[in-house]
Amino acid sequence: MDELERDLLDLAAIGGAGESGGVTRVAWSEGLLAAYAWLARQGAAIGVDPAIDTAGNAFLRWPAGDGPALLIGSHLDTVPHGGRFDGALGVLSGLDVIRTLRRDGFAPRCPVWLTAFMDEEGTRFGTALFGSRAFAGADLSGLAERRDAAGVTLREAMQARGFDFDAIPAAAQLDRVRGYLELHIEQGPVLEHSGDDVGIVTSIVGLVGLHVRLEGQANHAGTTPMTLRRDALAGGARAVLELRELARRTAGVTANVGVISVEPGGKNVVPGACELTVDIRSADPGVYGTLDATARGLLERIAREEALELTVSELYRLEPVPLDTTIIDAFERAAELEGATARRMPSGAGHDAQILAPHVPAGMLFVPSRGGISHNPAEYTTPGQCAIGSRVLARAVTLLAGA
Amino acid sequence: MDELERDLLDLAAIGGAGESGGVTRVAWSEGLLAAYAWLARQGAAIGVDPAIDTAGNAFLRWPAGDGPALLIGSHLDTVPHGGRFDGALGVLSGLDVIRTLRRDGFAPRCPVWLTAFMDEEGTRFGTALFGSRAFAGADLSGLAERRDAAGVTLREAMQARGFDFDAIPAAAQLDRVRGYLELHIEQGPVLEHSGDDVGIVTSIVGLVGLHVRLEGQANHAGTTPMTLRRDALAGGARAVLELRELARRTAGVTANVGVISVEPGGKNVVPGACELTVDIRSADPGVYGTLDATARGLLERIAREEALELTVSELYRLEPVPLDTTIIDAFERAAELEGATARRMPSGAGHDAQILAPHVPAGMLFVPSRGGISHNPAEYTTPGQCAIGSRVLARAVTLLAGA
Repeated sequence: MDELERDLLDLAAIGGAGESGGVTRVAWSEGLLAAYAWLARQGAAIGVDPAIDTAGNAFLRWPAGDGPALLIGSHLDTVPHGGRFDGALGVLSGLDVIRTLRRDGFAPRCPVWLTAFMDEEGTRFGTALFGSRAFAGADLSGLAERRDAAGVTLREAMQARGFDFDAIPAAAQLDRVRGYLELHIEQGPVLEHSGDDVGIVTSIVGLVGLHVRLEGQANHAGTTPMTLRRDALAGGARAVLELRELARRTAGVTANVGVISVEPGGKNVVPGACELTVDIRSADPGVYGTLDATARGLLERIAREEALELTVSELYRLEPVPLDTTIIDAFERAAELEGATARRMPSGAGHDAQILAPHVPAGMLFVPSRGGISHNPAEYTTPGQCAIGSRVLARAVTLLAGA
Repeated sequence: MDELERDLLDLAAIGGAGESGGVTRVAWSEGLLAAYAWLARQGAAIGVDPAIDTAGNAFLRWPAGDGPALLIGSHLDTVPHGGRFDGALGVLSGLDVIRTLRRDGFAPRCPVWLTAFMDEEGTRFGTALFGSRAFAGADLSGLAERRDAAGVTLREAMQARGFDFDAIPAAAQLDRVRGYLELHIEQGPVLEHSGDDVGIVTSIVGLVGLHVRLEGQANHAGTTPMTLRRDALAGGARAVLELRELARRTAGVTANVGVISVEPGGKNVVPGACELTVDIRSADPGVYGTLDATARGLLERIAREEALELTVSELYRLEPVPLDTTIIDAFERAAELEGATARRMPSGAGHDAQILAPHVPAGMLFVPSRGGISHNPAEYTTPGQCAIGSRVLARAVTLLAGA
């Protein structure tokens, strides 16, 4: 068992709820802080100083100082009952890279730092990407008073761990960073299907989330002839299928209806209302720019044709974020030097890299996810796949921070 | 205000929860028994003797005795927060008919009885059509131990009102009946759309209820390319639309998906499973005979094309019940004599008449429902429409029970 594999197993035991329960280390939890302490001990063991900033981001700095540094990072927080690779692999492969490069006597021409950003997942307070946003100087106003399911505010949760929300500096700390590298599991099936060792991320998708309500007329399903119905679910079903067609015929676009409900919900009652959510994504800024209007136009046409009332509200919106071409090229060269097969691909999920990328050169490296499964105890990447990813990451660091 | 209109308002006050709350007289409730007492007083006022049988069916017998009688009936129980016409109008128009015919000196050649069958709605114990089923000698085994939402069994609810479930005779009491007439609100929009005064029911639809589960693969909606998805909701959506097409192209058939849900139900998760209910109906025995197989074939084809696992289970099944042609003809002649416009039509909903029809000649008369609305405080039929229905019913009684 190599050091990275051993680290992955050791870390999974912190917040681990056993084999079937997966790993639970939500933001600001005792488990997450224990993982930080574990990381600090690993840093100390290889002679690198640990630190934690006011926003709860953990650092190992090689050497300590003010940078500007090449930053390797990801996150150690998880969703409830998550897997042991999402986030953790990026941090632990960064640790592996520093450990290996120090052992090999590599002398970087700039500091190489490792970070674990606080609360990438956001499941507890709806504050996804909190740590990287704080680090990038994003506006955090209003977040302190958000409550978790137990009614605890973010401010209180931070206080309980010795952190002060109001002490987070408003300014970005990015003048201390000259570049950002993040290795992550793909959380999708593309690499498994293509058989490539690594994916080099070209951009992180933009996405729009919509809440849709269609209203028709609830009626008795036995006594109302088909011609006299205004069935809201028929409109919802058309939306599901026509959005799928839209995505299928536009390269790189995904569309999903993941939540649907009807009212009143009786077996013998024609649905009078149907609510559903729409999630549409594209990594191409040009395509992304028209997606929202295209989807809304499609919904309006269906509502008109089905004689339904339509209400659409926006749930979320994130522009696509292109990653840095110099880093993309470095990853490609690094893969070549390590004998790893690589493919360029967009990231369909959000990551801390998208927060840093508008400000500093940022790049991401994917390794395969078995069955594309993530946010689940069954999440898995083989030790060999992890090791190849870590080697390509190390080689990229030598290319970017080499003499 | 005529007597029927006054009776409808008086009765609605028993178990009435005010204008907006509608009428609540569920089976075996104090409110329903109070309505029976009220009905008995109305009978006494016109010189007709009341009775209640062991199954909780209320009777007014003109004259008392053993029959065989022409039975007019419907039910006085309601769904929670129901309307004041569903069931009640059939009983009160029967009362109106007896009152009018007695006043007019009509001498029937057979007894004319009125009944209010217990628990037509079945919302409390899932025992719909209980009273008419008991009266027709149907197998009631197992029903006594069914529980309502408060955990009370049917047996206990009956005991609380002085009834003994085990005293219900196993044998039908239909040798006391020579025919059955039921006036009811349409609970649909057909008469309102056609402008006819009454509908003469030719048959009561057969129906099949199915529970459908489609299983695909839950995936991240951003990282899974459209071509690698097995979206269970896409299959569900196709089922909704293809069942609608099936019903639209087959005369007299209705199809409804009234309940739908997806798992895991995350906005950014491709649905891994979709469950829905299907309700398909036809009054035509030939069409009905093939409906179930056609629907299942359609579902199997969709599951195959979408690479989903399909599980179908039957929730309910009732064969179509043709009504008696002599009574249908009598209703048509009665409408003509009363100057009422009539149309022959199937009933898309179930009624006590369907329980009696296989055993004795049975017929049903519909009056319009405003907006097709029923099981709702907004249920409404105008006093004029009620009066026309009652007059046609009275005339049919004179034709069927005349000298």
